[in-house]
Amino acid sequence: MKAPQSPETDLIRRFFARGDRPAEGAIGIGDDAAVTRLPPGTDLVSATDTIVAGVHFPAETAAGDIGWRALAVNLSDLAAMGATPQWALLALALPDAEDSWLGEFSAGFFELAEQHDVSLIGGDLVRAPLSATVTALGSLPAGAAVTRSGLSPGDLLFVTGVPGSAARGLDGLLGRGDDDAGCRRAFLRPVPRIAEGISLRGIASAMIDVSDGLLTDAAHLARASGCAIEIDEAALAGASVGHTGRALSGGDDYELLFAVPAGHEPALERACANWSCPVSRIGVARQGKGICVPGFPLDTLSGFDHFGD
Amino acid sequence: MKAPQSPETDLIRRFFARGDRPAEGAIGIGDDAAVTRLPPGTDLVSATDTIVAGVHFPAETAAGDIGWRALAVNLSDLAAMGATPQWALLALALPDAEDSWLGEFSAGFFELAEQHDVSLIGGDLVRAPLSATVTALGSLPAGAAVTRSGLSPGDLLFVTGVPGSAARGLDGLLGRGDDDAGCRRAFLRPVPRIAEGISLRGIASAMIDVSDGLLTDAAHLARASGCAIEIDEAALAGASVGHTGRALSGGDDYELLFAVPAGHEPALERACANWSCPVSRIGVARQGKGICVPGFPLDTLSGFDHFGD
Repeated sequence: MKAPQSPETDLIRRFFARGDRPAEGAIGIGDDAAVTRLPPGTDLVSATDTIVAGVHFPAETAAGDIGWRALAVNLSDLAAMGATPQWALLALALPDAEDSWLGEFSAGFFELAEQHDVSLIGGDLVRAPLSATVTALGSLPAGAAVTRSGLSPGDLLFVTGVPGSAARGLDGLLGRGDDDAGCRRAFLRPVPRIAEGISLRGIASAMIDVSDGLLTDAAHLARASGCAIEIDEAALAGASVGHTGRALSGGDDYELLFAVPAGHEPALERACANWSCPVSRIGVARQGKGICVPGFPLDTLSGFDHFGD
Repeated sequence: MKAPQSPETDLIRRFFARGDRPAEGAIGIGDDAAVTRLPPGTDLVSATDTIVAGVHFPAETAAGDIGWRALAVNLSDLAAMGATPQWALLALALPDAEDSWLGEFSAGFFELAEQHDVSLIGGDLVRAPLSATVTALGSLPAGAAVTRSGLSPGDLLFVTGVPGSAARGLDGLLGRGDDDAGCRRAFLRPVPRIAEGISLRGIASAMIDVSDGLLTDAAHLARASGCAIEIDEAALAGASVGHTGRALSGGDDYELLFAVPAGHEPALERACANWSCPVSRIGVARQGKGICVPGFPLDTLSGFDHFGD
């Protein structure tokens, strides 16, 4: 009798098993679990995030952009620890499995994966409303992780990239504002700041990626560290695109927000000389709690209230 | 200004952050990614599976059983490699986040996690139709993984537990057959065979967990190994509950199906003396391809056709 072949197994083989075994002796897609090996003296870094159609991206987003995004948001979490990404597992929920959609999705996913030498080592494909959950695995020299909790009063606050770009791009896509091609791409193809995160090991005292909006993520840093953060509105306006409100509250930038003790500024200058993105000093940590932006009426920000507790 | 707190962050803290840091120096829930450390000389083992309401369990299943199941199906994948589970990440999609539901779900999840010293180190909570994706991470002595592809002609085939129990339990739950409490529990609270899988390192030549049905999963073993498998109907009937068809095609047992070279039978006997479940010899590997069950009309099995290719 012919051995049975499930439709799922077949789809995974056709669209996701690239034949590139993760490394000598490793076991990737096709067994019950993947087997890989970390270099000696390293820590394992793991993150998982789900993106849902109509929640984290417009339902009509191109499949290739969804595939890219599913991986990007997770690589960005590894970047925020200073980790080097190595492997990914993908759990994809689809209402129906169309070849053309799967082909574009996997092309977008692997385009980003290959830029960072990330191997897809496992996954699952189920029939359900469209969502994608990626678990990204990476490594760090033991003890070198940059956390959210290392901020001290006096540390200087920096952000990569151009805050507010993705929010402006999404507004353009949804017909709510001017349509700028660069900002649209910033929303649709966010660039995880992997090399930047790695180069900040030993320099940054604390780091987070900006996914929920600069203000919200700065508040996470402040709370985790037991500090206050003061954001310099003029500096932020100079670094960002459009109005300051969007730079403060707009989500989905996937930039790095990080702190550097004043004595590490020369090291930061050397590190960022090779970066592919701008970096801007936008604030400072203070004793106390919470976030302030002197001169800016935070209570006018939509998109901030709904996080209140 | 008060630091914002997202509803998601608050729910994760209340229901999923148990305060048990995974180990000295490790970073668990609450940062961008988790940081953990594997013992020297070990391989990392990773698996991810999604369970969807109405697909992988009846929509009216109790929240505690769903929480257990989400972890169990993934621990079973680690067991099938012979791995020791250590950590899990959970991506939970919920249409609405009710405290009572989350309390029961997390209780079921942690009941199983604590049995195996598994720490929840990360996760995500999104608003979407009910599904749960777990990524289970574990370890193995380097090179000790038991794969699907090690079967050789002459190897003897064994299965743990009582094949068909979960299918009979599901039939009872859905009013399609007699309602047996033990079988209902086998469906609702599948027991991943962790200790059994670990004890089969160095003894089993190939292994898989039975999730899609004994016949389908045996076919996966056979294909991965380039062998045929002959199943002994009388032996299977003696090991299973109800009719042989259900033991062959019923899914969701999460038992281990494994092969042992004839010379390893004494080692298997010593290993399984301490197991908490029965084990039965049900077949043998042969040269060739596919699965045969002499004397049993495989083409009468519902639940097998739809895997045809």
